[in-house]
Amino acid sequence: MTAYINKDTQVCMSLAARPGNTGTRLHNYLYRELGLNYVYKAFTTEDLAAAIGGIRAFGIRGCAISMPFKEDCIPMLDELDPSATGIQSVNTIVNTAGQLKGYNTDYTAVFSLLKSHNVPNDLTFALRGSGGMAKAVACALRDAGFQNGAVVARNPEKGPSLAQQYGFKWKPNLEENDEPNLLINVTPIGMEGGSSAEDLAFPETIVRSAKFVFDVVALPSETPLIKLARSQGKSVITGAEVMTLQAIEQFVLYTGIRPAAELIAQASKFAREDPT
Amino acid sequence: MTAYINKDTQVCMSLAARPGNTGTRLHNYLYRELGLNYVYKAFTTEDLAAAIGGIRAFGIRGCAISMPFKEDCIPMLDELDPSATGIQSVNTIVNTAGQLKGYNTDYTAVFSLLKSHNVPNDLTFALRGSGGMAKAVACALRDAGFQNGAVVARNPEKGPSLAQQYGFKWKPNLEENDEPNLLINVTPIGMEGGSSAEDLAFPETIVRSAKFVFDVVALPSETPLIKLARSQGKSVITGAEVMTLQAIEQFVLYTGIRPAAELIAQASKFAREDPT
Repeated sequence: MTAYINKDTQVCMSLAARPGNTGTRLHNYLYRELGLNYVYKAFTTEDLAAAIGGIRAFGIRGCAISMPFKEDCIPMLDELDPSATGIQSVNTIVNTAGQLKGYNTDYTAVFSLLKSHNVPNDLTFALRGSGGMAKAVACALRDAGFQNGAVVARNPEKGPSLAQQYGFKWKPNLEENDEPNLLINVTPIGMEGGSSAEDLAFPETIVRSAKFVFDVVALPSETPLIKLARSQGKSVITGAEVMTLQAIEQFVLYTGIRPAAELIAQASKFAREDPT
Repeated sequence: MTAYINKDTQVCMSLAARPGNTGTRLHNYLYRELGLNYVYKAFTTEDLAAAIGGIRAFGIRGCAISMPFKEDCIPMLDELDPSATGIQSVNTIVNTAGQLKGYNTDYTAVFSLLKSHNVPNDLTFALRGSGGMAKAVACALRDAGFQNGAVVARNPEKGPSLAQQYGFKWKPNLEENDEPNLLINVTPIGMEGGSSAEDLAFPETIVRSAKFVFDVVALPSETPLIKLARSQGKSVITGAEVMTLQAIEQFVLYTGIRPAAELIAQASKFAREDPT
């Protein structure tokens, strides 16, 4: 296929401190299956300003932005989409005739999944975490009309700050009599290869009383929390869904084409076969 | 193949005002056949400094430089190879751990072809042309030990200037009694699609008295001049040879691998199947 790259091939890319292969494999798989003249490549950089300059100079169509560039890139762009404005964090740059616009498809994906899974916005939620992704989730919850919930985070600065920003309560820990209906894990607990890979992000008693369980951890696709929730017949949203959907939203922004669900599933499977 | 690009894939590219497909097809064909984890893409730019900054920021391994960037890029590089120093023109940038070094593989290719075709350096030559490629050829002739020859160019400024720079004579036109042994065309005469596509770069009588005929025009691979020279049993060097060899020298600089002659022939044929 690379032998057929030509002068008209559009280039999309990613910038991350530690580039992976998932995005590259997903996008290139879809380009190939859909016969689109695009190519995707992951990069890292030690000079973000020069990299953004390169996106302009080479006419790169789109660029995924990962840690630690999501905030730093904002002053270098021409425009922010509302998906990025609410959390002041960009994970996607779209270049249209030299104008760079920043989006956040993590936000978009979480917002969409809350809708597509029919999660009622009058549920009480507990959101564990206080990092960048927790911000995207909190903002999506607010924008989806959720009003009753708490950010559960030990960090005594980031926790209350995040909760206050989106109009929610803050708790350092869940208490014994708490019975949230919607549990959302946005910590690394349960992540493959991590020190807490075998741990539950919420205690079993809390899971038992919940209706929906949402785990942002994408690898493995079935974390201990998701496994437990499924065994109890709860409705679940997985991190794998978030990861795939946010990448698909990028794909749509870059190409204008929304792939069919079956093709997305195939591409996602292919991408995960080498998830380094 | 693009589906197998990964985070370790090295990227090579080109920068030109009007990018073509030949280099992209040649390099990607060789990467594929040799199983190298590289990908090649042609770009244009309206901001050379930002593009060179992008090469550094993305860690692009190598970049071919075409018109009109060959001289302008020089102050942006860290080092010049002797192949570029003599003509102050860069057609290749190699990025080694952030250090950008400029080369000129047109020069290298012409120099090599004079050797590999066993052109004796005591021949009298006539070089038609006075542009950037004429400079590369004149410098290669001088460095290969040629001493007797003339730059034949109507331009009353560039012609004498080029001739003087490399220690040769200048003539606005060949005269009737001139009988150069080595004819070199570095004008667009005979080029496919040009206004003089059917013309001979040297008159038939001059060709008859020559021993070697070298036409830098690469498309078609058999120009009217080369066709005539072959019909008279002259030794010829074609522009197609220059074009392929200069690209192969770039390939060697980027990858450290010199492909076998048969593979080069296949790649060159593949590249020429879509020479836009």
